[in-house]
Amino acid sequence: MKHLFTFQLQHRDGGSKARAGVIETAHGRIETPIFMPVGTAGTVKGVHQKELETEVKAQIILGNTYHLYLRPGLDILQKAGGLHYFNSWRHPILTDSGGYQVYSLSERRKITEEGVTFRSHIDGSKHFFSPERAMDIQRIIGADIIMAFDECPPYPCDYRYAKESMELTHRWLKRCCDHFDRQEGLYGYEQALFPIVQGSTYEDLRRASAETIASFDRAGNAIGGLSVGEPAEEMYHTCELVCDILPADKPRYLMGVGTPANILECIALGVDMFDCVLPTRNARHGMLYTANGIINIKNAKWKDDFSPIDEEGPCMSSRFYTKAYLRHLIHSGELLGAQIASLHNLSFFLWLVGEARRHITGGDFASWKNGMVKRLEQRL
Amino acid sequence: MKHLFTFQLQHRDGGSKARAGVIETAHGRIETPIFMPVGTAGTVKGVHQKELETEVKAQIILGNTYHLYLRPGLDILQKAGGLHYFNSWRHPILTDSGGYQVYSLSERRKITEEGVTFRSHIDGSKHFFSPERAMDIQRIIGADIIMAFDECPPYPCDYRYAKESMELTHRWLKRCCDHFDRQEGLYGYEQALFPIVQGSTYEDLRRASAETIASFDRAGNAIGGLSVGEPAEEMYHTCELVCDILPADKPRYLMGVGTPANILECIALGVDMFDCVLPTRNARHGMLYTANGIINIKNAKWKDDFSPIDEEGPCMSSRFYTKAYLRHLIHSGELLGAQIASLHNLSFFLWLVGEARRHITGGDFASWKNGMVKRLEQRL
Repeated sequence: MKHLFTFQLQHRDGGSKARAGVIETAHGRIETPIFMPVGTAGTVKGVHQKELETEVKAQIILGNTYHLYLRPGLDILQKAGGLHYFNSWRHPILTDSGGYQVYSLSERRKITEEGVTFRSHIDGSKHFFSPERAMDIQRIIGADIIMAFDECPPYPCDYRYAKESMELTHRWLKRCCDHFDRQEGLYGYEQALFPIVQGSTYEDLRRASAETIASFDRAGNAIGGLSVGEPAEEMYHTCELVCDILPADKPRYLMGVGTPANILECIALGVDMFDCVLPTRNARHGMLYTANGIINIKNAKWKDDFSPIDEEGPCMSSRFYTKAYLRHLIHSGELLGAQIASLHNLSFFLWLVGEARRHITGGDFASWKNGMVKRLEQRL
Repeated sequence: MKHLFTFQLQHRDGGSKARAGVIETAHGRIETPIFMPVGTAGTVKGVHQKELETEVKAQIILGNTYHLYLRPGLDILQKAGGLHYFNSWRHPILTDSGGYQVYSLSERRKITEEGVTFRSHIDGSKHFFSPERAMDIQRIIGADIIMAFDECPPYPCDYRYAKESMELTHRWLKRCCDHFDRQEGLYGYEQALFPIVQGSTYEDLRRASAETIASFDRAGNAIGGLSVGEPAEEMYHTCELVCDILPADKPRYLMGVGTPANILECIALGVDMFDCVLPTRNARHGMLYTANGIINIKNAKWKDDFSPIDEEGPCMSSRFYTKAYLRHLIHSGELLGAQIASLHNLSFFLWLVGEARRHITGGDFASWKNGMVKRLEQRL
């Protein structure tokens, strides 16, 4: 194992808890804070790998264990030499553990101490994930950062369920770590395992979970169970409480968050890594994020607006195509509409975290953030 | 009108009737023989304009009058300054007249001497196209090459219907030309009007139609009503008969053709221009055209084939992505699958006509063509 996973904290903002850092992985460097485009089934929907590099300027993308396990399946991924070789994305990859997707199946899954039995959404076939199995699968997928197998409780969630679920997540984490540490990666490079803080929106549970997760002393730590329907203020409060406990010398990853404003607010609380389907999913429905606010491109007001999608846009496509043309494409259900809007939104998210980083190192993050958050939430 | 439409014949093949030439238009140069990707609603499905330039190396694309008329509509297109400004494709464009799409609506349209009344496939609204209206609409769209409003009879078609339909097409052509010649283009550049030979598969009708069409002495001529279900031999026979009558000093456009082998055979008969939805439509279903034959990427044999889609592939994407990955994407209904396969197929069609041109000017077209046609139709 030549390649060691490292995190260097480079700057701390004076006016907030925001940080700038660098993660090194076997597949390259990630400058934090960072947004990670979601590539569910080994592809960021509608975007070429080359475009992810040159237009979006993604530094790391996600893969979903549940989806990749079902299709193309582990035999294919292992024969390929892992996901990096399978999809030709040679930069860092993070995989979730499959837990979140499995729980989303609700009617189709059963949770026991041992693990989760579930049925495929594709063909109804029966499968079983345990903490050990989730590690084995993520070894085969070969992501640079892999996630512990946790339970993500719904929101709202009663205290008793939240506590039992958190305790199960902690017991599963022990099993994940034990199993993970017994083996090396399959492809000659190191993988880092991140544990996940749970505990719903209960302060004492979140505190206990953050302390437990920190005590495992892994290469990075994640915050799960947020952005599941709770009010933004509750998300921020929980996020801050947890960030204050998680060690400062390790990256903090807030799972599944969020809007541009959510991301800036949580950077201010000490989060380093984000992922979310919003930029791509909303793109396909014509919702565009810009530095001046949100555009619903389906709106009739854009039908004869021949100005660029975003004059000062974050990528070539934002400046090349017009609003009227993109509206026509989305309106007509044309593939190119989803492609352009996805490129624009992802590029914008990457631009935004890049700007955040620049302002953290420049020393004016807090005031910049407060101004941006107001602009970001306007409707254009 | 500064920009005149011209065609220069550069080479004639010794062993066949194949020709190499150059068309000059207000939006640039087209080297023939050429294949024109179909951009139905102002977009070649799944392919960025920049990719059409740099990967596919398209020199001219098609737009469909019927689709563009319904969406985005003429007011938007005119305000944009024509389709080139609307979709940001600044190279040559050809539009069909809408006739073919309107007839495909079958139950929803009614043909009279005056024109065709039809209902929109989108909202059922009622519309009327006449020869004059088709010219006005194509003036607004602003394509470099526009097509006469014709009737395309079905196959098979009885002699009487084919004859009456052809005569209607000829009367409509007169009206198209008279109306077209009374006006200049709206955007300061010349548009060329191509008439269309009809006559089903009846030799005497095709001969009469080719002579009539030639007598109009327009800038180029098209052959319609083929590739509508007739056997390939019948298509070739009709195509040859018509090409022999159409003037040699003007480009000949065979509408809606076809497979790679069809294209090479018809180049050998003297055709200069082709368009077809096959490369993009079949791409979306996982059928790939290569110099060594046809790949059905959905086939299980490709599931763990990690070689490039096409080692000596015509575009970067063909060489960058693997067969196993593309199979996974198409299988999973991922947008990127359609994108990659469309890029590959279109690039291949453009590569093929480029090679044909190279062999025409090189003097060995006929023998090269005979070898290629055999390879192209193999199933890999």
